[in-house]
Amino acid sequence: MQQPGRLIGLGVGPGDPELITVKALRLLRESPVVAYFVAKGKKGNAFGIIEAHLQAAQTLMPLVYPVTTEALPAPLSYEQVISDFYDSAAEDLALHLDAGRDVAVICEGDPFFYGSYMYLHDRLAERYQAEVVPGVCSMLGGASVLGAPLVYRNQSLSVLSGVLPHDELKRRLADADAAVVMKLGRNFPKVRQVLEELGLAERALYVERATMANQKIVPLDEVVPMSSPYFSLIIVPGERWQG
Amino acid sequence: MQQPGRLIGLGVGPGDPELITVKALRLLRESPVVAYFVAKGKKGNAFGIIEAHLQAAQTLMPLVYPVTTEALPAPLSYEQVISDFYDSAAEDLALHLDAGRDVAVICEGDPFFYGSYMYLHDRLAERYQAEVVPGVCSMLGGASVLGAPLVYRNQSLSVLSGVLPHDELKRRLADADAAVVMKLGRNFPKVRQVLEELGLAERALYVERATMANQKIVPLDEVVPMSSPYFSLIIVPGERWQG
Repeated sequence: MQQPGRLIGLGVGPGDPELITVKALRLLRESPVVAYFVAKGKKGNAFGIIEAHLQAAQTLMPLVYPVTTEALPAPLSYEQVISDFYDSAAEDLALHLDAGRDVAVICEGDPFFYGSYMYLHDRLAERYQAEVVPGVCSMLGGASVLGAPLVYRNQSLSVLSGVLPHDELKRRLADADAAVVMKLGRNFPKVRQVLEELGLAERALYVERATMANQKIVPLDEVVPMSSPYFSLIIVPGERWQG
Repeated sequence: MQQPGRLIGLGVGPGDPELITVKALRLLRESPVVAYFVAKGKKGNAFGIIEAHLQAAQTLMPLVYPVTTEALPAPLSYEQVISDFYDSAAEDLALHLDAGRDVAVICEGDPFFYGSYMYLHDRLAERYQAEVVPGVCSMLGGASVLGAPLVYRNQSLSVLSGVLPHDELKRRLADADAAVVMKLGRNFPKVRQVLEELGLAERALYVERATMANQKIVPLDEVVPMSSPYFSLIIVPGERWQG
């Protein structure tokens, strides 16, 4: 019987193609099938990072998200549509795995840090051998280009989603020694307001598309709210420990 | 006048030498001076990761911690001793920088994620050009070898130090959607007890020296408390989102 292929969750780092690990690069080159999530009509950030390393013999497998927003008209529900999509993507991958071919799913940042790969992993890792190659996640890419030491010594770090409601975001930020707020986009105005209410706005740093070619660092109070992209983040670094 | 050298904080990843980034490897090879923190009499994890890439012409600069414990006999204070040490290490680096030589400070994991490099950065980044190369941090190395998707969708992630007192650790863990507890060592018994009190012990995963050659994954209830090394961590993954 055919030995099944391996499922590989391949973290390719935050954007700068040089921030891929040596291991991810090796496994990328060794994988006959390369899958990646992408929005309809887009090339995809993760794909852009590794494009230069692809070889003609590799099979490319774009996994195109069926929706670009979570707000769908009734009777559609985002949860149902996206769950069906992951089911079907997992079965497409399984065909290659069953045929003995390794499939590398390339992931911007790290596969297990808010990555869509997690939904394939949850569906396939019990049936197939799965390997995950960790990557440099976006918040560490962000801290590096901002020149902002993130957490000192025994400080606690809170990683929060900008989607959280105002009060929960405020409560969690107030309790954090250091914080990263991800998934800004249209949540930006709310997040900035919460930071201002807490007196944290002056400590907070903002970056769009950290380490990517089109990276942009802007003072928080100069960000044009509706122009903030999904791939932006805010860092509230821990208070400097003299050490 | 001599153009000063660059200070480079070089993240070399969590332990597996292949988990270094392409960029870190390039800058490592290009740096005439390579500095690294190390305990007295030890080789150091970060040094072990990059040792094979060093060339004879490079100057090695071990920065040897003056103490191995924070509990010092009076009138010594850890804060003072360690602060003097970082002052003196920074001045040693400055001699090379003033002479126009780039200095790469290699850091296990990521330089800005609880790294000792931060104390050199805080002392030197205003006087010299500083560049930070982010790395794969230990918690993501840990999640990958545990096969544990860490945070889903809009969940909050809390990164906590095992040094925190029982009650604060308990409060923060109770409030976390997903959590990582670092710096276990002799804090392990307290951390395990808190997890048990919160009913989280069954969800928690434990790993020692993740991605290193001597990595060890042990069920939480089988860990021998006093044998838990500093480089161990506990992950409480976020609840699976069906997606």
